[in-house]
Amino acid sequence: MEAGDIRVRRGDLTAFCRSVFENRGMSPEEAEVTAEVLVSADAFGIPSHGVGRLRRYVSGLDTGLMLPRESGETVLESESSLVVDAKGAMGPPVSVRVMGTVIEKAEQTGAAFGAVRNSNHFGIAGYYARMALSRDMLGIAMTNTAALGVPTFGREAFFGTNPIAFAAPAGTEEPFVLDMSTTVVTRGKVEVYERRGDVLPEGWAVDRTGKSARDPGSLLSGMQERRGGGILPLGGLDTLLGGHKGYGLAVMVDILCALLSGGPFGRGVYDTPESSARVSHFFGAVRIDRFRDPVEFRADMDRMLRELRACPPAEGRDRVWYAGLPEAEHARETERRGVPLSRKTWEMLRELGAETGARLPSEMP
Amino acid sequence: MEAGDIRVRRGDLTAFCRSVFENRGMSPEEAEVTAEVLVSADAFGIPSHGVGRLRRYVSGLDTGLMLPRESGETVLESESSLVVDAKGAMGPPVSVRVMGTVIEKAEQTGAAFGAVRNSNHFGIAGYYARMALSRDMLGIAMTNTAALGVPTFGREAFFGTNPIAFAAPAGTEEPFVLDMSTTVVTRGKVEVYERRGDVLPEGWAVDRTGKSARDPGSLLSGMQERRGGGILPLGGLDTLLGGHKGYGLAVMVDILCALLSGGPFGRGVYDTPESSARVSHFFGAVRIDRFRDPVEFRADMDRMLRELRACPPAEGRDRVWYAGLPEAEHARETERRGVPLSRKTWEMLRELGAETGARLPSEMP
Repeated sequence: MEAGDIRVRRGDLTAFCRSVFENRGMSPEEAEVTAEVLVSADAFGIPSHGVGRLRRYVSGLDTGLMLPRESGETVLESESSLVVDAKGAMGPPVSVRVMGTVIEKAEQTGAAFGAVRNSNHFGIAGYYARMALSRDMLGIAMTNTAALGVPTFGREAFFGTNPIAFAAPAGTEEPFVLDMSTTVVTRGKVEVYERRGDVLPEGWAVDRTGKSARDPGSLLSGMQERRGGGILPLGGLDTLLGGHKGYGLAVMVDILCALLSGGPFGRGVYDTPESSARVSHFFGAVRIDRFRDPVEFRADMDRMLRELRACPPAEGRDRVWYAGLPEAEHARETERRGVPLSRKTWEMLRELGAETGARLPSEMP
Repeated sequence: MEAGDIRVRRGDLTAFCRSVFENRGMSPEEAEVTAEVLVSADAFGIPSHGVGRLRRYVSGLDTGLMLPRESGETVLESESSLVVDAKGAMGPPVSVRVMGTVIEKAEQTGAAFGAVRNSNHFGIAGYYARMALSRDMLGIAMTNTAALGVPTFGREAFFGTNPIAFAAPAGTEEPFVLDMSTTVVTRGKVEVYERRGDVLPEGWAVDRTGKSARDPGSLLSGMQERRGGGILPLGGLDTLLGGHKGYGLAVMVDILCALLSGGPFGRGVYDTPESSARVSHFFGAVRIDRFRDPVEFRADMDRMLRELRACPPAEGRDRVWYAGLPEAEHARETERRGVPLSRKTWEMLRELGAETGARLPSEMP
């Protein structure tokens, strides 16, 4: 939490977003789900995917890039699979529905997967992977995104930040929930460096010649105008630190999301000024009891996660954590103290409240 | 290929390895499969996992860490899943058998997975993922390995190199086959730097205080004696370049391999002087036609892979490639010119030939 942040109750914030979405023509159910997905990102401490995006969602609804009351079309279905053409629907409602169906199918067959094409921004991938946890399943969620990542040895953007989320339940420990972009960083982090006037760390991005890019401003404008340059895959420049591995993971995500669903892939996925569009998603669920007694599995998860937490930290570090733990701790603090919002986000919410008549949450003391 | 390498015919090399394995008590079928998996690594240009390991496999058989004619026990099975206790069997035969069963199950249900515990080194993960390609399926293979990777913000090894392999078929293009460790590098690369007397690149490893390690000798001895320090996860030191993501992927692999199968995990997996042992694997296969006409899928794969190959290279680079392409090109060259072997490996093969009576391949001109 930065100085100047304010805090609001989670339920109030969700209700506010729901009202805004309903004002823009979404059904109560869609509005509820979309509000819940956005607010969960803020609760988990991932504000880049939270209500700070509300204006972009509203713009998407206003311009018709994101369609309310559009539930898409199932184009192929089997006992263990599902392909949906979202037809420009809002990302969160179609994603929650498909992941729900995938879980029901996995209940029957042990493992099931769903691929969605022609969708929109779906928020945090981890939200959908987490849906499997209470069912004693492993959860998987991925999405492709607008192209901004440069292949190893290349100099033009080809793939998106293409996040991978994977969730596994534990017993008394917080669940393991990995939710990671397969690029070194996302565009948002580059924007932060630009606002601060800082040079980019070595290993984040390349310019249009394919050499290390240090100026965030020219990187962002070059990517925006598709003049070359872009963000590096996880592992960074060339192969010395494994950049080819992040590149491979990004392509894998595109295959699972877009090539399985028949959606646009690679640089065929691009942002308009209003919003990202035509993205594809991939969801999966696997029953743990098809491998092992879930009680034993959860006990071993607890053992592993406790061992990780107990790892001696490097000099100058407080502790070792694992994926999902900081998010869970942030969410608990949020329950007590409210969801933190930056001043900038708060101002945007005030404006949207004035435009839509939605009731602004009250600031917590 | 380095100066001093020699080349032998692939078939001759496979026959040699088969004879050595049979001499050590393996059945003809096991010996054939294991030889084929090892030689395929050399053919693909991955000598770290090729016949250079033959002495270690023979030692494993001699000391009883790797058991010949042991087919393990199926401990749980459903229409879409399989758990096998390998009981110390050789890695490749049990892995080929389980991946084969997973593919047959996926043929019925659309998607299936298998987990194996108490196994041994299984060679290249990509070998098993590739088995799905000719069946119009996506293939997945992973394994945990002896602990040498340090969690983000930690200073002691907890997880292995934990590779992920993912294979997707194409039409006329070479298939996409990702096969990557989730650490920045493997132990073998650190050993190369030690032999050369070079300092390690920044971002590969930490010492026992958790600071960047540059001396390969003290890193290797520290890891060997479990005194602290180790190799960093993909993404490197701390979180600036995404080290927490590689850390998360490594834990995900351990969950899928060891926690699903009930095998040892984390630092419970360790090398003896003779060989790595008690590792766990994970295999998966997904039918493409449960999502989309495989002909269309392959056509889109071709389109994407051609677009990747046609990406303009960075200044000073020849070309952009994709995962699986260099391996396929290396294998083609191998068909023409023979499998390259280092002088060191060749000497080891000569010794093993003398010990076992196996007929050494003749050198190609």
